[in-house]
Amino acid sequence: MELFAGDPACAFCGIVSGRVPASRVYEDELVLSFMDIHPAAPGDLLVIPKVHAAGLEDIDEALMAHLFRVVHLLARALRRSGLPCEGVNVFLADGEAADQTVFHLHVHVFPRTTDDRFRLEVRWQERSRAALDHDAALIRARLNRGGDRRGTP
Amino acid sequence: MELFAGDPACAFCGIVSGRVPASRVYEDELVLSFMDIHPAAPGDLLVIPKVHAAGLEDIDEALMAHLFRVVHLLARALRRSGLPCEGVNVFLADGEAADQTVFHLHVHVFPRTTDDRFRLEVRWQERSRAALDHDAALIRARLNRGGDRRGTP
Repeated sequence: MELFAGDPACAFCGIVSGRVPASRVYEDELVLSFMDIHPAAPGDLLVIPKVHAAGLEDIDEALMAHLFRVVHLLARALRRSGLPCEGVNVFLADGEAADQTVFHLHVHVFPRTTDDRFRLEVRWQERSRAALDHDAALIRARLNRGGDRRGTP
Repeated sequence: MELFAGDPACAFCGIVSGRVPASRVYEDELVLSFMDIHPAAPGDLLVIPKVHAAGLEDIDEALMAHLFRVVHLLARALRRSGLPCEGVNVFLADGEAADQTVFHLHVHVFPRTTDDRFRLEVRWQERSRAALDHDAALIRARLNRGGDRRGTP
């Protein structure tokens, strides 16, 4: 029985179903991990929900929590693997404006070394306390805890 | 009662305890979120465990899962906040080699717009299927599921 037939046009659904080859690292009922076919460095892996979900709006918080439980497990295994890995970056792009290119939600787990070419280019800004308080209030106003939170700590 | 006195030299422990000012967005028993004082863009926020933990090796998977449950809640609230946000990046740096600068574990939630200056500079490599399979086997060998996994999906 193919539980996760998924989107036939989606490469990651193809990997879940077995139609597309991948070097698998971890699998459970909900989540799959495999090596990125174009790695930033050897050991670069992806963690995805098996269900086709484009982004953060399309998964519930239980699946989000489990996805990152697996990221935690894999980041620690990567550190112990013997592959060059002195640090780890975890990266998720949600939406085209955030440079998402495959529209099946995925988390990158990047092994880092001190001399690698990996860079996050950000122009950090100054922002006043009043402006920060204003921003925080706008976001707090949208925290729909009753509707969004299906679990509790 | 101050449950989380934390590390007196740590700025984020100072925010948790209230000694250091911050524009708070979310708080529960385990996790705190506040605006980054040097944002990449307005709305840029941080999510941290209240307990002082330097990196991924220093938290258990239950705390990791809860941290990202809160990231999910906040990323969605940020999208709805009215601040410029067409996409979201979630970013975590674990270790100095991964460009971690504050050694209290923190997750960045970055609002993105199509015309911003935010860039992840990565030189994607070609790697053969045999090499990918080899990398995957090395990581799989370090998956200590019995020891690391305290919860189940």
